[in-house]
Amino acid sequence: MVSFENDYTTGAHPQVLKRLLETNLEAVSGYGSDAYCSSAREKIRKACACPEADVYFLVGGTQTNAVVISTMLKNYEGVITAATGHINVHEAGAIEYTGHKVLEIPHHNGKINPQELRDYLQVFYGDETHEHMVFPGMVYLSHPTEYGTLYTKSELESISAICKAYHIQLYIDGARLGYGLASLDTDVTLEAIAEICDVFYIGGTKVGALCGEAVVFTKKNTPPHFITMVKQHGALLAKGRLLGIQFDALFTENLYWKIGRHAIEMAEQLKGVLKEKGYFMPWDSPTNQQFIVLENERMEKLKSQVKFSFVGKYDKTHTIARFVTSWSTTQEDIEHLKKIL
Amino acid sequence: MVSFENDYTTGAHPQVLKRLLETNLEAVSGYGSDAYCSSAREKIRKACACPEADVYFLVGGTQTNAVVISTMLKNYEGVITAATGHINVHEAGAIEYTGHKVLEIPHHNGKINPQELRDYLQVFYGDETHEHMVFPGMVYLSHPTEYGTLYTKSELESISAICKAYHIQLYIDGARLGYGLASLDTDVTLEAIAEICDVFYIGGTKVGALCGEAVVFTKKNTPPHFITMVKQHGALLAKGRLLGIQFDALFTENLYWKIGRHAIEMAEQLKGVLKEKGYFMPWDSPTNQQFIVLENERMEKLKSQVKFSFVGKYDKTHTIARFVTSWSTTQEDIEHLKKIL
Amino acid sequence: MVSFENDYTTGAHPQVLKRLLETNLEAVSGYGSDAYCSSAREKIRKACACPEADVYFLVGGTQTNAVVISTMLKNYEGVITAATGHINVHEAGAIEYTGHKVLEIPHHNGKINPQELRDYLQVFYGDETHEHMVFPGMVYLSHPTEYGTLYTKSELESISAICKAYHIQLYIDGARLGYGLASLDTDVTLEAIAEICDVFYIGGTKVGALCGEAVVFTKKNTPPHFITMVKQHGALLAKGRLLGIQFDALFTENLYWKIGRHAIEMAEQLKGVLKEKGYFMPWDSPTNQQFIVLENERMEKLKSQVKFSFVGKYDKTHTIARFVTSWSTTQEDIEHLKKIL
Amino acid sequence: MVSFENDYTTGAHPQVLKRLLETNLEAVSGYGSDAYCSSAREKIRKACACPEADVYFLVGGTQTNAVVISTMLKNYEGVITAATGHINVHEAGAIEYTGHKVLEIPHHNGKINPQELRDYLQVFYGDETHEHMVFPGMVYLSHPTEYGTLYTKSELESISAICKAYHIQLYIDGARLGYGLASLDTDVTLEAIAEICDVFYIGGTKVGALCGEAVVFTKKNTPPHFITMVKQHGALLAKGRLLGIQFDALFTENLYWKIGRHAIEMAEQLKGVLKEKGYFMPWDSPTNQQFIVLENERMEKLKSQVKFSFVGKYDKTHTIARFVTSWSTTQEDIEHLKKIL
Repeated sequence: MVSFENDYTTGAHPQVLKRLLETNLEAVSGYGSDAYCSSAREKIRKACACPEADVYFLVGGTQTNAVVISTMLKNYEGVITAATGHINVHEAGAIEYTGHKVLEIPHHNGKINPQELRDYLQVFYGDETHEHMVFPGMVYLSHPTEYGTLYTKSELESISAICKAYHIQLYIDGARLGYGLASLDTDVTLEAIAEICDVFYIGGTKVGALCGEAVVFTKKNTPPHFITMVKQHGALLAKGRLLGIQFDALFTENLYWKIGRHAIEMAEQLKGVLKEKGYFMPWDSPTNQQFIVLENERMEKLKSQVKFSFVGKYDKTHTIARFVTSWSTTQEDIEHLKKIL
Repeated sequence: MVSFENDYTTGAHPQVLKRLLETNLEAVSGYGSDAYCSSAREKIRKACACPEADVYFLVGGTQTNAVVISTMLKNYEGVITAATGHINVHEAGAIEYTGHKVLEIPHHNGKINPQELRDYLQVFYGDETHEHMVFPGMVYLSHPTEYGTLYTKSELESISAICKAYHIQLYIDGARLGYGLASLDTDVTLEAIAEICDVFYIGGTKVGALCGEAVVFTKKNTPPHFITMVKQHGALLAKGRLLGIQFDALFTENLYWKIGRHAIEMAEQLKGVLKEKGYFMPWDSPTNQQFIVLENERMEKLKSQVKFSFVGKYDKTHTIARFVTSWSTTQEDIEHLKKIL
Repeated sequence: MVSFENDYTTGAHPQVLKRLLETNLEAVSGYGSDAYCSSAREKIRKACACPEADVYFLVGGTQTNAVVISTMLKNYEGVITAATGHINVHEAGAIEYTGHKVLEIPHHNGKINPQELRDYLQVFYGDETHEHMVFPGMVYLSHPTEYGTLYTKSELESISAICKAYHIQLYIDGARLGYGLASLDTDVTLEAIAEICDVFYIGGTKVGALCGEAVVFTKKNTPPHFITMVKQHGALLAKGRLLGIQFDALFTENLYWKIGRHAIEMAEQLKGVLKEKGYFMPWDSPTNQQFIVLENERMEKLKSQVKFSFVGKYDKTHTIARFVTSWSTTQEDIEHLKKIL
Repeated sequence: MVSFENDYTTGAHPQVLKRLLETNLEAVSGYGSDAYCSSAREKIRKACACPEADVYFLVGGTQTNAVVISTMLKNYEGVITAATGHINVHEAGAIEYTGHKVLEIPHHNGKINPQELRDYLQVFYGDETHEHMVFPGMVYLSHPTEYGTLYTKSELESISAICKAYHIQLYIDGARLGYGLASLDTDVTLEAIAEICDVFYIGGTKVGALCGEAVVFTKKNTPPHFITMVKQHGALLAKGRLLGIQFDALFTENLYWKIGRHAIEMAEQLKGVLKEKGYFMPWDSPTNQQFIVLENERMEKLKSQVKFSFVGKYDKTHTIARFVTSWSTTQEDIEHLKKIL
């Protein structure tokens, strides 16, 4: 059985694990105040070309979204997202649990359209009754999106300009950022991300770490007493070293980019195999998630030989399936899949 | 510099780390559905002599308290705790953040007194206006407590009987349970804990893991859709394997107890040294946390040679200090401290 | 200036006010425990032909929605509504503030389509990842809707059957129920409402009271300690008499129906006038809210002579306007408007 | 049966009701935007000698506390109160429901001691771990307190100075403010209240209105989009006129003070009767609530002839009872009680 189920099936990249092993017996202080966290922060600041950035390490993606969104929004504000946004669909209502409405607008293969965002905001402020409505306080977008798609730099700049015009914040969920940065078809760099948005996170869990996401506040805009609120969310790790050491490793000698490039290379080969075998791709993904439409009976047979995941129905007799590569996908996995298909 | 600062300064017990390394490249499914989690669950059930127990793995202590308490309480209920309870003092209001009041009663070296608990409940239900008040829905206690003290089995049974009489739940915070079970001065076993309470957790973070706490629902009383609510709290780890593998290691060949016994042995030696040197202990702790009263100037000098933590003022010129041992405390650490003192 | 702005511009129906005056000096107990509340409850039970109903009086509509929905949902559940539902648009996120997601489905002139509801539920339970999503726990609908439209009895029965099949609750927001019951074009009675749904409220604020909504739990399904949770929401009126006396008056000698019929008669005349004058109605409303499309310049002129409200843009040069009647609308108001138009 | 049960047993002061009647048929705009609300606001500003005050009308006391506290606190902050504070005991956890911890300090006949407040704040900021604790963000006190006691102007100034020194807000719950201002034994005026605190409310429900409390932000410090958050709490009355007209009446020709003085005169007579009859008063109350210690059997007998309320046990054989006067207490009520006693 070969697995293309997702990008969190295996443990950590060996380089990351090695560092955990080497540092294991050192006694360091807790809650992110250790030297490894400091070093990782500094390396991330450099990689972002954003020396004044504040960097915090949290454990997982949904947790990070809930903490960042709820601490940056005012009580009367909600967060705008594409209908397919992770916070709107697959976080079990974690944002609403913090008291904030998720304001959905249409998606286009997972992406927000800048013009539709602008329209939404114009209609909101044009509505005489908007004091009785939830104020849009932030735009959330994921890059890559849940559909594996990427924003262009120009799209991100348009969205950012709209946010600035309406005095709302721009937050980028980078759960799979490493795979976006390494895409063959992108003009968006980490520096650009840091410059364009107010806050984003660099995903570790899906890009080679055992766990961990690095939140980057780029505009000296960390909410006051952020650590206290992280604790309040049950999101403050006692052994903060676990996160600091991993991110320090990921941002040493470009490991984060190496992981990304490897997964993208595998994904491109995967895409080639799928296309070669005649599978229909409902949209094009330039990142590590590849989507195909499978006839339902064919899908059932395939399930016994390869692990992949199900996105939803395409029509009555077809399903959209997802194949994902990661740092741990091997050339053998691709060959194996090729034989099966 | 030698450190007795706390029990989460070092990484993971080498046996735990070894297992993470050995299993690193296996592709397993996420969110706690893998074979390592299953194996760990089974081992914990056996160790608790509670075959019907439901076991879930969460990441940290405050998170675990917030998830367990908020999912087991009704909206109109709060949780009773000793005034010194971790949830009442050092969790940044994480319980209140979920909408529930923390109802404090007096503490006695960190412990609840059963009679005072009973009185509290009698006064509550005797009050004509109690429909306008927060209903007590759970008793929270920590074992060992924040003062390093332990309940006797008889005390736990009394508290449990009162809870049953008033139809409220009993929850035991076992962040340092391993050190309580290994104490030389206890009649409380893991089996007894599982029998006496409705839900408890077995602390990993402070007892040899990188992170992780194992929640045990002992009475077939897991709240429906618990996993969904864990997700809603941002507490569901994608790579659940990280927790499963660690607890599987901790519950293999009694590692959890070995860690506990080692730390207790070190703590007993530590206590001996402190007493020998004439330090006053404001209360007796039979576990891995030892407390002494230090004259303030003496304390300042000591801080440059040994790491320890500060509990609070004893009087105008004295402070209560805490020295903590763990799985990673060595004989050399004790000798080193002895010399310093 | 004549006003058709809404149905809460004037005070209380004179009969209601008269009763407040007559009873003013009687000393009664607080929080809804007085004889007037009891009498009103009994009259409402009779009017609903639901002798086992539990009736509670709250102050306003948004408050009622928040209290009912948050006390009936489990933590992991959200509430399904038409996109145009009041809870989704005009309650400033009051439902999300209680921690629950509002799950929107399309609307058809303000109404839910039973088949689309069924599809939503089928897709949800058919999704392998639904444990990571918000469970649908309740269907919310308003009758009349925000568009003035009404469900047929058969539609309500279909929706109810779907709810039962999926074990979710059906809640009807009756802020304007009196105007729905009195419509010339409905087969839905108060008895039918009580039979079909699990909980609903009878609006007072917009149907002749100074304030007040009567929540009716129809299936012996009041959440335990409901009063405590009402208090927790800041929704328990000390002088509960204010609500009891008003509802007692509204349900004496069919006053609630008389108010409804009067407003509907006025609304039918209003509709006649609007049609006669050639105004385009974007949809037909059989209740006290009438909607027309106005050319923007025409609208500006009209605003100086008659008060009405704005629903939204129809197109670039036209706006949808709303004209509302109530118990206090007079024949002179209609004649006055006729002249203006 | 004569009633001294509380100050919300009867309806509204006749002057208040008269104004509701006179204005009933006028069509005015909703949500507090009408001319009566404006007029009432202006009269309150004048009475407070605080021309820049922002005034909002809410419906009840618990609601007001929840709205004010939750909109003024940051997420990481809690509110300090005397242990006996209404928000800590009799609001069913309404503050915690908004996510904020209630931080209790000891009470002295219902009052906070300034020195103990200062100590609390010093200990908090002196604690090295305070970033893991709930930050004190506000001091709540009630004037009169739940014990009927009053702060002196000097005490309020001390508390205010401490609040300023620690950059926290001072909020005064004036549910019974009218009875405090009219006390024979006070140097605290409404102007002084407005000057000393950051926000307070003028109680209507217990001082002659059917319902309603007027929140006064005294330092140009209304939280942005306050109305939206009031709506979010389900606390925005559609017919805002109901509150505006009542407060306009209460602040016309000093009605609010007249009501206060009448109730105080009755309370002083009541106190005289109780003392004359030899009842023991556990503390002295200079306001409209009078407390006596009753032997339990005696109390049972008395209950059949006069209505009063029970505060709690004094000892095994005695109970503390409360007798309350209001605008509607008559000379006959006092005479009647005298005969009974």
